[in-house]
Amino acid sequence: MNPTTLTTNIYQNNYAVIGTGALGGFYGAKLQKAGFDVHFLLRSDYEQVANHGLIIQSKDGNFTIPSVNAYQDVAKMPRCDVVIVSLKTTHNHLLTEILPFVVKDNGVVLVLQNGLGIEAEVAAIAGDDRVIGGLCFLCSNKIAPGHIHHLDYGKITMAEYASHYHSVATTPRLQKITHEFTNAGINIEVAEDLLLARWKKLVWNIPYNGLSVILNATTAELMADINTRQLVQQLMEEVLLGAKGSGRVIPQEFVQLMLDYTDNMKPYRTSMKIDYDESRPLEVEAIFGNPLKMAKANGIDLPQIDCLYRQLKFLDARA
Amino acid sequence: MNPTTLTTNIYQNNYAVIGTGALGGFYGAKLQKAGFDVHFLLRSDYEQVANHGLIIQSKDGNFTIPSVNAYQDVAKMPRCDVVIVSLKTTHNHLLTEILPFVVKDNGVVLVLQNGLGIEAEVAAIAGDDRVIGGLCFLCSNKIAPGHIHHLDYGKITMAEYASHYHSVATTPRLQKITHEFTNAGINIEVAEDLLLARWKKLVWNIPYNGLSVILNATTAELMADINTRQLVQQLMEEVLLGAKGSGRVIPQEFVQLMLDYTDNMKPYRTSMKIDYDESRPLEVEAIFGNPLKMAKANGIDLPQIDCLYRQLKFLDARA
Repeated sequence: MNPTTLTTNIYQNNYAVIGTGALGGFYGAKLQKAGFDVHFLLRSDYEQVANHGLIIQSKDGNFTIPSVNAYQDVAKMPRCDVVIVSLKTTHNHLLTEILPFVVKDNGVVLVLQNGLGIEAEVAAIAGDDRVIGGLCFLCSNKIAPGHIHHLDYGKITMAEYASHYHSVATTPRLQKITHEFTNAGINIEVAEDLLLARWKKLVWNIPYNGLSVILNATTAELMADINTRQLVQQLMEEVLLGAKGSGRVIPQEFVQLMLDYTDNMKPYRTSMKIDYDESRPLEVEAIFGNPLKMAKANGIDLPQIDCLYRQLKFLDARA
Repeated sequence: MNPTTLTTNIYQNNYAVIGTGALGGFYGAKLQKAGFDVHFLLRSDYEQVANHGLIIQSKDGNFTIPSVNAYQDVAKMPRCDVVIVSLKTTHNHLLTEILPFVVKDNGVVLVLQNGLGIEAEVAAIAGDDRVIGGLCFLCSNKIAPGHIHHLDYGKITMAEYASHYHSVATTPRLQKITHEFTNAGINIEVAEDLLLARWKKLVWNIPYNGLSVILNATTAELMADINTRQLVQQLMEEVLLGAKGSGRVIPQEFVQLMLDYTDNMKPYRTSMKIDYDESRPLEVEAIFGNPLKMAKANGIDLPQIDCLYRQLKFLDARA
């Protein structure tokens, strides 16, 4: 028995999954497979999933969940201890209509979304002390309704959210959630500084998501050309500047680490490129707009990130 | 008789046109139509033009030049008083093999090309006192070998080049050339500061040429979207910074003038977009690379222009 188990209560959390796609469907299915009580909110895929469950095709082993608690109407869902928000951020305007119905009074919202500043938006609905942020390092696609293909990775970095993104020492409720996720076979890392974790993830997400859409390119193509490789590095360094403006220091070596990491990846179509290719709205505000706004509020201009932001807004509006 | 005619010699200049495309073919045909002795260097269109001459379809009136002095081999051309360089800058590596054969000892090279810094490159071949720069405001396309469609505009701003782009008062030889062009129905403006004129033209060329290729967009589309409209303006302001670093002040009002001008244009496919669509090399170094280098030499970073430069280099290399 390790010390973290001392802090877990005797009963298990129940879980709601808001947005049962490539990400929410995957983690929700893993939790249910491990024996947790999970409730899935769906829209277009409701009929399929209600009748036939979820199929997970994974590099870690395929499995099916033949019978799931599927809902079209949030009002019919039970209130849950942990409400996983796994919508695309472009649908977050729906959360004001969803979260008040589904979070238990002492429950928590676990935001498994991309970008920066989303926890503050969710806290405005659920309360400052009701939000945990989660950063997913996951490569998975929904290849059909209820059918998810998990290609690679899967780790989640979780951290408590506090007003103004102040750092928070690990809480018992976070320990309990990470313990349950770990029991479901999900690799978890706990962080104390959610904002630092978010900025760190942007070091990768901003250059590769942006340029892959704008230039119709894979990560490997961007790395093979000396000009885009240099631009990727410059964009990463602008992210470090933005982080520094928020009082978060990302060491310069992290840039080289991300470049090396990408050099060693298989050619990869980023999540924003997949959205663009499938004519879905792009998460431009979460990944680009919010970091630019936060930097600006700290008196810092990030001109090359701004350039990508405006190019992506144009492409997003036209699509 | 106006004063300028006093300075013209009694004999007419003869002209060589190096690069008989949409631009060189158009101005060369206008000069020959007005009675000047013009010699055209051609490559792929040689057979057609040698046998059938030039067809000019122009908003100012169509005309044909049935018989032209056409050359495939520069060694067979006569030396000329004025050698018009109207290649794309991407072919300027050929000039070392061409100019020494075709410029008279007291002749001059008239560079009718896009971008910055080209005159200095030509001066390295022809001599510092043998170069005039010309900025063309012309909208024309070659629609078939020897067949040019002149859609709009046509003015040329001409200025003497001096070492290090120092300003030069109008010279008799420049007056003579502008007089002859004017007699051929070409609208000419004389400038004393070639570098200022080049930077001014970049205020338009950098945002619209760059973004039209990167975003696959017309000028009208770029102006209709608030994000790209703002990016266009920011890019224009970076050009002003670059100009200032070279000691050339372009007033801030010029930005608004260019925006208004573009708002009032017909939707326009830029020259770089036409090159890209037709899989021709892009003039990235002349229009983006050289201004960036000149600004850098003056200690000035232009990050958004740098972003476009690297994106265009990637697209150019891939195409």
